[in-house]
Amino acid sequence: MSDDFILDTRLAGDTFPIKGLGLSAVRLMDDARWPWLVLVPQRAGIGELFELPPLDQTSLTYEIAAVSAALKRLTACTKINVGALGNVVRQLHVHVVARNEGDPAWPGPVWGVGTARRYDDEARRALIAALRDAL
Amino acid sequence: MSDDFILDTRLAGDTFPIKGLGLSAVRLMDDARWPWLVLVPQRAGIGELFELPPLDQTSLTYEIAAVSAALKRLTACTKINVGALGNVVRQLHVHVVARNEGDPAWPGPVWGVGTARRYDDEARRALIAALRDAL
Repeated sequence: MSDDFILDTRLAGDTFPIKGLGLSAVRLMDDARWPWLVLVPQRAGIGELFELPPLDQTSLTYEIAAVSAALKRLTACTKINVGALGNVVRQLHVHVVARNEGDPAWPGPVWGVGTARRYDDEARRALIAALRDAL
Repeated sequence: MSDDFILDTRLAGDTFPIKGLGLSAVRLMDDARWPWLVLVPQRAGIGELFELPPLDQTSLTYEIAAVSAALKRLTACTKINVGALGNVVRQLHVHVVARNEGDPAWPGPVWGVGTARRYDDEARRALIAALRDAL
């Protein structure tokens, strides 16, 4: 972890911490419409995947794969969506979202769709606990 | 390249070939609203990033980074968007899109927005030539 890495305030406000991996913090998007995780590489000043050093790119790839596979196992979803957009929040972050036919945005992307539906405390704690076990 | 890899017919119909890299075919999405590339790993039967063998995951990551950096240099865009969704076309493919403030979907994602605006032949050939040079 870079000493000078600080999580973007908007990311911090929209998500809850799940687990730290070697490079990335894994966080839960507070939107119960989809099981939606965000990986944030703990590196300061990075906005694009290609700005990471090659070894970090490889680490991030394996972390994305591990998180995606765990989310797929846990949710038995139809498809995993992975995206690094950053048009609004420029700090590099990678979305990993479990998608199912008939979900509120299917088959379109989840980003920018409608309004987040916040988890209630109990449901959020249970999901975070299950995700920690799965990771 | 796997002997039994066949490009999905919808991807083939929506894109034009630009260049083959070690693992992926790089193709141009036929939508002049955004400079939009698609990388298709030449592996049969793969739908999710985490289904690729680890070495292929690393190769794909480096190819995404190289293509993203080239697209950024060529277009001087504000932000690169990278996404692997596959809700419609299940064959693994990775979108790399050049985004700018005020573009037709900014700051939302490009997928599923409106109707593609096809390139005219001359503009398409010029862009493909420039992309081949940049890659």
